[in-house]
This record gives sequence, C-alpha cells and structure tokens, in this order.
Amino acid sequence: MNVIVIGLGLIGGSLALDIKKALPNAKIIGIDASEKHVEEALLLGVIEHAGTFDDIKLADRIIIATPVNSIATLLPQVLDVVKEDAIVLDVGSTKAAICKSVENHKRRRNFIATHPIAGTEFSGPSAAIHGLFEGKTNIICEVEKTAFKLQEKALELFRALGMRIRYMDPVAHDTHIAYVSHLSHISSFMLGKTVIEKEKDERDIFDMAGSGFASTVRLAKSSPTTWASIFKENKGNVTEALRLYIANLQHFQQLLEQDDFDGLHAEMQDTNRIKDILNGIK
Amino acid sequence: MNVIVIGLGLIGGSLALDIKKALPNAKIIGIDASEKHVEEALLLGVIEHAGTFDDIKLADRIIIATPVNSIATLLPQVLDVVKEDAIVLDVGSTKAAICKSVENHKRRRNFIATHPIAGTEFSGPSAAIHGLFEGKTNIICEVEKTAFKLQEKALELFRALGMRIRYMDPVAHDTHIAYVSHLSHISSFMLGKTVIEKEKDERDIFDMAGSGFASTVRLAKSSPTTWASIFKENKGNVTEALRLYIANLQHFQQLLEQDDFDGLHAEMQDTNRIKDILNGIK
Repeated sequence: MNVIVIGLGLIGGSLALDIKKALPNAKIIGIDASEKHVEEALLLGVIEHAGTFDDIKLADRIIIATPVNSIATLLPQVLDVVKEDAIVLDVGSTKAAICKSVENHKRRRNFIATHPIAGTEFSGPSAAIHGLFEGKTNIICEVEKTAFKLQEKALELFRALGMRIRYMDPVAHDTHIAYVSHLSHISSFMLGKTVIEKEKDERDIFDMAGSGFASTVRLAKSSPTTWASIFKENKGNVTEALRLYIANLQHFQQLLEQDDFDGLHAEMQDTNRIKDILNGIK
Repeated sequence: MNVIVIGLGLIGGSLALDIKKALPNAKIIGIDASEKHVEEALLLGVIEHAGTFDDIKLADRIIIATPVNSIATLLPQVLDVVKEDAIVLDVGSTKAAICKSVENHKRRRNFIATHPIAGTEFSGPSAAIHGLFEGKTNIICEVEKTAFKLQEKALELFRALGMRIRYMDPVAHDTHIAYVSHLSHISSFMLGKTVIEKEKDERDIFDMAGSGFASTVRLAKSSPTTWASIFKENKGNVTEALRLYIANLQHFQQLLEQDDFDGLHAEMQDTNRIKDILNGIK
C-alpha cells in the first residue's frame, strides 16, 4: 500500500511515523514544498521515499498536512488525479473553507475532512514524534459525504493510531475551535511579546520567571507559518473570539483601577470552574 | 528549634514539609486564620502542632506565608514580639509595601524579605508538596538590612531546600514580577472566562480542547484570594503591564482585520525568540 503524506511538519511527520508503525507494509512517500524538509524527513526516517505530485495517482491513501490556507487549493487538484478507491484526508485546523472547496467535486466521496486535536509547540520534520495521536480526539466533518467503504478505511487508521472520534459540522467546528485553540495561541504570542518588549534590555529578568509563565507562554514558540495561515482561514471567528477576550481584559482592568478587589475575586472564583472542565484533557 | 509557619496554604505548607525534612529536630508549628486549614494541615502531617500568636515570642524562625495584602499589617506585629535572635521571613509575591511597612521598625534586622518563585495552580494545605522549591529561584530584597548572622541562618535554610538565590531591590522586583508572573495569571483567567462564557451551554465543546488550551488556561485554577491580594498590592505595575498587553492584542486584531497576514507572521516570528529565553525555566 502506498501512503503519500503532503506536508512534512509536526502533524504530517508524526502521522507518517505512526502509520508506518501501524501498517508496517505501507510504503510511506513524502512530498513537501521545501526540499530541505524532504531531505530532513528522509534523514530522520520520518518518510521512506521522496515523491512528486505524479505519484499521487498511484497512491492508496493521501494525507494533506500543509498549512491550512493552501489546502483548499491543493485538495481539488489531488482529487482530480486520485485512483477510484483512494482515500484523501486533510488534517487542517480549520474545516469550513476546505469542505466548501470540494463540495461539488466529482470525487468528493474520496475525501474525508479531519482535524486531529494534537500537537506540540514545535514544528518541521524534526518535531515529528511517535504516539502524538494516542488518546487524542479527531474531529471528522461531513462524514456522510465520504464513500462508506472509504470512511471505514479512514476510521481503521485512526483507531490504529489510538484516536477517539467526534463528528461535527465544519462551520460549527471553526467557530468553537477559535475559542478552545486559536485564541490560546494569540493570548500566548501576545503575552510573550509584551514581556520581551518590556524586558528587552534585561535578560536576567527571566530568571524571575517560574513554571506559570513558561506554561502560559509555551504556545508562543509555535510556527508563525502554520498560525498565520490558520488565522487567515478562520479570520471571522478568531476576530470575534479576540474581541470578547479583549473586552474581558478591559473589564478586569476597570475593576482593578476602581479598587474593586471583591469584583476581581468574584471573576476569578467563577473562572475556577475551569478545573472541572479541564479534567480529562491531556 | 521552634519554626512557626503563619499561613498554611500551598507555599507555607510546602515550606513546612521541606523544613521538617531538612531539619528533623525542628518543631513545626502552624498558625492560620482558618481553623479548617489548621485541622487539615495537622491531619495531613503538614505541621506538627497548632499554635497561637503567643507562641511567636518563643520561636526561632517565623515564616509569614499569608496572602500578601495582610503581610504588611502582620509583619510589624510579629517583629514587636520576637526573640532577639529570631529570624522572620515573608514569602509574599510582592515586596515593596512589605519592606516599607517595617523600614523604621526597631527589629528590622530580624526580618528578611523573600519571594520563592515556585508554585502550582492548587491552593490550601492539601496543595502542600515536598520538593516544591528544589532548583527554584528565591529573590531576596534589601538583604543588607538583615543582621548578618540572621542572613546566614536564612541562606542555610534556602540552601537546604535546594534554592538558588538572587538579590534585588523591592521596587524593581515588583515591576518585573508584574510582567513575568502576575500578567500571566490575568491572561489565563480571562482566557478561561472568555471560553466558558462562549461555551456555557455546550460542555461537549471542551472535548475539542487540546494540550495547548490546557497549558495556557492552567493558571485560571489558581486561588482567587491569593491573587486578588497580589493584584491589590501591585496594582500600579499590574495595571501598566495589562495596558501594554491589551494594546498588543488590539494591534494583533488590527492586523487581522486588515488582512495583513505577513504582519501577523512577522509578529509571531519575532516572539518565537521566547524559545531561547525560556530555556532553563523549569
């Protein structure tokens, strides 16, 4: 079986590693716009062969793991050439525009839209790790538009990776993911920026930072290319989430300026509910 | 040797545990405004005896680990009654007002102002853990105002706990800590609030949250009492840090609304420097 992974970063690379482990007979072929990434992925054993677009027409499974804003362009081109029984899946962090890009494609039934909720703050082929998807959630959108037999092939693969499956509408996916994932990245990037700006001449100051700062600012190490692309694709939802976040921060500041420390206490106590909500997130 | 710990929460409780381990002959006496906390600390073996304010005059070492806004009131009262060779230390997250409160006290030389940069998002006696301070930084302010022999006693204790020491002016401490600690807590609390508000009727949505969200929102589990108190004590610096953070978020939003994704990319790439800066923070 030929498996082609397009986009050899953290997610594509980790999928390549896990698929090889789950399906030892699979031939894992990698494609990436960056030659350096392809070489690195070969060297690290993330993929077994470097491929070209021409190889897609012979592939059994094609995984698209490029930055999300390129998927809507790439996906119809891939579907144009795939074999009749091939399954194409994307792993982008947004889903509406991608699903829309192939809604009338004659090979729509060869495609399954997925979003594995997994990752680290690292990027590129060297960030690929075994077991990244174990126990994590994979959100599948518009499953009914995928051919029944191909749904099964995809689900078998996700089961082999240890993922649990949730089904969701792509528009709802993009709204909610703006809050529980995309907004976190902005809050973290801007926290990092604020502190670096303030302390730029005093690197020693970071000696004062503890594990709390490290935890809140961890996502500010993430790939700018991945995230600029996500913010572009999900602009409307991200803008709205950010608007509400800024409004809440301004309200907090107002309470602070008015010496309303009971008010601040109440805000924080109410938010402590996140303890129960987070139970179960790994 | 009698060691009195006033305030039996995460920090005070963890200190009690580690001091008992480092100095097995020490008698660890706990005081807390909450009777429930005292009982819990006794039950959990965090302290050996429950004490009263009267015990302070016989104590060799007194550790004040109450919410910061109470320390400036409590500390002079403690110094009023301590033995001549007793060392009193506070572990508050702000330092300027506390140092100011005893600047002219006749027993100023019995006091050492410290801020151990250690903690978790949990609180109360049950949050006390062994080894919390191992390898962490302890910031000492105005060390020259503490009697030489008592400085030594305190430093011996911190060494026994495995801490590394940094010396700093209390006003500079409060400015910088607003950025590398206090601001993180606000960003995390308000992120939690924003997401809970949005998703209040859809608890399932948190199934979509991954480790990134968990990491950025972790501090939103922290004690409202501890943190309202810190924000009160460090209001000026926290307000300014928050103002800069909001301004950076608004700038980010502007770039987003103007479709300036290259600008967003540049912002994030520049902030990626946090990778190098964070190396070494545990």
